[in-house]
Amino acid sequence: MSDAESHKQKMQEVQARQRAKVSELRDPGRGLVLVHTGKGKGKSSAAFGVVIRALGWKQNVGVVQFIKGKWITGERRFFEEVGGVTWHSMGEGFTWDTQDRDRDIAAATAAFAKAREMMESGAFDLVVLDEINIALRYEYLSVETVLEALKARSERTAVILTGRDAKPELCEYADLVTEMEQVKHPFQAGIKAQRGVDF
Amino acid sequence: MSDAESHKQKMQEVQARQRAKVSELRDPGRGLVLVHTGKGKGKSSAAFGVVIRALGWKQNVGVVQFIKGKWITGERRFFEEVGGVTWHSMGEGFTWDTQDRDRDIAAATAAFAKAREMMESGAFDLVVLDEINIALRYEYLSVETVLEALKARSERTAVILTGRDAKPELCEYADLVTEMEQVKHPFQAGIKAQRGVDF
Repeated sequence: MSDAESHKQKMQEVQARQRAKVSELRDPGRGLVLVHTGKGKGKSSAAFGVVIRALGWKQNVGVVQFIKGKWITGERRFFEEVGGVTWHSMGEGFTWDTQDRDRDIAAATAAFAKAREMMESGAFDLVVLDEINIALRYEYLSVETVLEALKARSERTAVILTGRDAKPELCEYADLVTEMEQVKHPFQAGIKAQRGVDF
Repeated sequence: MSDAESHKQKMQEVQARQRAKVSELRDPGRGLVLVHTGKGKGKSSAAFGVVIRALGWKQNVGVVQFIKGKWITGERRFFEEVGGVTWHSMGEGFTWDTQDRDRDIAAATAAFAKAREMMESGAFDLVVLDEINIALRYEYLSVETVLEALKARSERTAVILTGRDAKPELCEYADLVTEMEQVKHPFQAGIKAQRGVDF
C-alpha cells in the first residue's frame, strides 16, 4: 500500500470513529455551565473568545466582571465600541488595591445580584462571570449562593465562570471544567505585561 | 487586631509584593510568541479573546486558520461582520474529511506562505496561527519552516499558535506556553457540541 493510500485509510478510520462518537451525543436541551480555572493564562480570554462566537450566531450575551472592574482592558474597550454585550463591572480594582474587606464584600454581592438577574431572566444565551472564582476564594461570595443561582438559571442560558482556584463544589456541578496550566510564562522571563496580549 | 485590620494588612503585603514584581519586569521591545496547546478546550477561544483585546487597543490583527477552514464558526461570522481582522482560511475541513495527504500539504503550505507574509510585513501587531499545531503534527509543515518564519517576523508582531500536541522545539522558542487541560468535558457526558459555546 502506498503512503497516500495508507494515509487515506487511516483518515477514513478516524472519520468513522468521529462520526460514530458524534451520532451518540445528545442535545442537553439547556445551556451548559463551563469553568475556566488553573494558574495559566487564557481563562478570561477563552471566555471572551466564546462571547464573540456566540455574538457571531446572534446570541444575547451578558458579562459581569468580578475583580478587574477599575482596570481598562482591551476587551472592555472593544465591546463598548462594538456593542451587543450587556456589561457590568464590579467597579473596584484587584483586591490588594482596595484593602477593605467590607467594601469588597458589598461590591461582590451587588455584582452577583446583577449576575443572578441576568441568569434567571431568560434574556441571555450566555452569561460570563469573569473572575468570580477569586470572589469565591476570598469568601466575598459563598459557593452555596452561586450554585443556587446557577440551578435557578433559565434553561437557555449557558454560563462561564472564570478565575483560578475554582471551588470543588462548583467543578462538581459544572458540565465542563478546563484547567489552564502555566507551562512557561513571560513573568518568569521577567517580561512586562503587553497591551493587547495581556490586557 | 480585628478581622478587617488583618485583612487590610494581608492585602497591603500582597500589593507590595505585586508592585515589586511588576517593577522588576522589562519591556521585551518586541511582540511575544504564545503557544496554546493541550487536550482541553479554550485554545482557539483564548486566541480570539486576545484578538478582541488587541482590537480594543486599535491594533492590527491577522488570523490564518489551518484546519477548520470549511467549518462555519461563530468567530468567523463575527469578524466578517465587525471587520478589522485580516482573515485567511486554509479552505479545507478537518483532515479526516479530506483524506488526501498531498492536497492537505499543498493547502497548509499555501496558508503558511500567507502567514509568513503577515508576520514579516510589519503591518500587524498580532497574528494568530489557529490550529497550526495540527498541521505540524501531521507533518504538513515542518517545525523548522515555522521557527524560521517566527524568527524573521517583524519586531512589532506578536504571534499566537494554537492546537494540541505543540512541538517541543516550538515550545522551547515561545515566550509563553499554556496547556489547556481537560478536567471535565461534555463529550464525556455524551453532550452534543453547542452553537455559540463550542463553535
